[in-house]
Amino acid sequence: MEKVNLSDKFALFKDHWSPKIVGELNGQQVKLVKFKGPFVWHHHEHEDELFLVVKGQFIMELKDKHVQINEGEFFIVPRGVTHRPNAREEVWVMLFEPAATLNTGNEINDLTKTALDNI
Amino acid sequence: MEKVNLSDKFALFKDHWSPKIVGELNGQQVKLVKFKGPFVWHHHEHEDELFLVVKGQFIMELKDKHVQINEGEFFIVPRGVTHRPNAREEVWVMLFEPAATLNTGNEINDLTKTALDNI
Repeated sequence: MEKVNLSDKFALFKDHWSPKIVGELNGQQVKLVKFKGPFVWHHHEHEDELFLVVKGQFIMELKDKHVQINEGEFFIVPRGVTHRPNAREEVWVMLFEPAATLNTGNEINDLTKTALDNI
Repeated sequence: MEKVNLSDKFALFKDHWSPKIVGELNGQQVKLVKFKGPFVWHHHEHEDELFLVVKGQFIMELKDKHVQINEGEFFIVPRGVTHRPNAREEVWVMLFEPAATLNTGNEINDLTKTALDNI
């Protein structure tokens, strides 16, 4: 039972699109990730995903609209909804999602991360 | 599917110890709450609770230690662990916990909130 300082944890890694686990509760995980550039279009069959911007901003691209998420804002993508995060500049994001969630959802490709580090 | 701005939501209420629901995903809820002063000692039988400080700071009092949680830090209280948040000055906190979580856990008293507002 130790507190987690978000800035300290974000300082521990530099890679993009590679979520790190920083907490776990009720079968859900808290992950930190740095985005830069466009990700891949995907959806999650069984998981809703929360994106909270800790530093910077990004665009959540959906099929029918684009939503700019700024620092201090969060966005929930419901299960089944196709989406693509896109960050012009690097952005630091905190994720809340079920432990089983795969970063690329239904799309398995070079960006897929199957074994996430705990930091 | 709309984004949530934390500052805008915190501006909508002033009362202490009364969580407001601002998001729901995977059977979990995101709640915002303002703490001031000491709360009541309690535990949650079946729910782990995450406290993320958005503005200010507070002390998470546990039976064997006190942990100061500052802005940009979070703390997870596992189910069954007796705790008491205590804030010398007002603090703004984001909670992440199962929808069924009662704010006072096993202690039912005047501070217990059974019907939370969505804001």
